[in-house]
Amino acid sequence: MFVIMVYDAGERRNAKLLKIGRKYLHWVQNSVFEGEITEANYFKLKAEVKQRIHDTEDSVVFYTFRSTRYTNREILGKKIDPGNLIL
Amino acid sequence: MFVIMVYDAGERRNAKLLKIGRKYLHWVQNSVFEGEITEANYFKLKAEVKQRIHDTEDSVVFYTFRSTRYTNREILGKKIDPGNLIL
Repeated sequence: MFVIMVYDAGERRNAKLLKIGRKYLHWVQNSVFEGEITEANYFKLKAEVKQRIHDTEDSVVFYTFRSTRYTNREILGKKIDPGNLIL
Repeated sequence: MFVIMVYDAGERRNAKLLKIGRKYLHWVQNSVFEGEITEANYFKLKAEVKQRIHDTEDSVVFYTFRSTRYTNREILGKKIDPGNLIL
């Protein structure tokens, strides 16, 4: 499945989420990752994120898609390294 | 169609993008909006964003979906005001 992860956390935890995100997904933009991922790895990713964040201060949103057939991405402004992206 | 808008811009332009985002979509998290939008409004949204951003410093990513049938959202940490969201 395809996942978009967006997060808003305290500075130190942002750095930890960046590290975790890079293990499973592709960096798109500050606090935004995307990529294809297995169900097993998706659960691992969420478990690692859950361990790192502060439940009342931080927010992490996962958008998941069983198919990217109906999905499109458009970028305005700074282009992102295409080698970095899946969609 | 359903749109997720994520942006990373200079501080002053971030405030302007927040204002534009609120006109067309629902706030989800810092620099993240989502919502159902018509094609016409999607073009207006992009035109307004294009006018505001700095092409080499800022980055705005739009994920669009013709259907949310294959889409799911999960939130870890701070819950977002459910009245605010579409999915």
